[in-house]
Amino acid sequence: MTEAAVDKRFYLDDLHVGQRFVSRTHLIDAEQIKAFAGQFDPQPFHLDEELAKDTLFGHLAASGWHTAAITMRLLVEGGLPLVGGIVGAGGDIAWPKPTRPGDTLQVESEVVAITPSRSRPHRGTATVRSRTLNQRNEVVQELMTRRTD
Amino acid sequence: MTEAAVDKRFYLDDLHVGQRFVSRTHLIDAEQIKAFAGQFDPQPFHLDEELAKDTLFGHLAASGWHTAAITMRLLVEGGLPLVGGIVGAGGDIAWPKPTRPGDTLQVESEVVAITPSRSRPHRGTATVRSRTLNQRNEVVQELMTRRTD
Repeated sequence: MTEAAVDKRFYLDDLHVGQRFVSRTHLIDAEQIKAFAGQFDPQPFHLDEELAKDTLFGHLAASGWHTAAITMRLLVEGGLPLVGGIVGAGGDIAWPKPTRPGDTLQVESEVVAITPSRSRPHRGTATVRSRTLNQRNEVVQELMTRRTD
Repeated sequence: MTEAAVDKRFYLDDLHVGQRFVSRTHLIDAEQIKAFAGQFDPQPFHLDEELAKDTLFGHLAASGWHTAAITMRLLVEGGLPLVGGIVGAGGDIAWPKPTRPGDTLQVESEVVAITPSRSRPHRGTATVRSRTLNQRNEVVQELMTRRTD
């Protein structure tokens, strides 16, 4: 796996299918989980350890949107070093497992497709799969994004 | 369009295809946009009006993940009143237009499919499309989620 140097950023023309990037790590704790949930996803299983016990999670879990936001931070800070930044028109997101307090998250991204523009040279769309893993190497989020240049 | 009363919450069995729900509204400003971006998506076009002018947006714009997080808050607070809360295994997300300072966001949700479980009575999967609209009735986010009960 190639770990990209922080100061090197890639144009679409530089990317190739199979190319991989790895982010730095982020340690999430209960305080962060509750703060995000209080602002954006105020449900018992994201807010309170005791209340969470009686829910489908059985323990405090981060909002999926919190996992997504942390993933974005890791991608922006070197996890996906693209010239012009990371601007997605959208994508497909899945949370196969919850993120829990004490988890250390890291994002592995892989270029899975590149579609050149038919009309504009040096333009096209890159499809990138970004997997967010915890310290047990379990996938807590999988994100497929298309980026057009 | 049916606006759900805040205190009525629905089981999967109560839902039908075509059923619609409308959230309350949320006014977003530059301060919120910069605070979220500073924490989760520190790119120039989300952080600074002046720097944003030279980017593809041409103006300060909210992170798509910020729009997603606000949408979740609106869904949790009555925009999608489901018993047991809103827990998605994932979905498809698109941001057709950026969210800007001064936008008033509101979420319209529609049940687009219900698939009963073959093995478990009263269980199944509901597919809900949630459109986040601004005050000009432009769609800034479209989210398709599947929820299994």
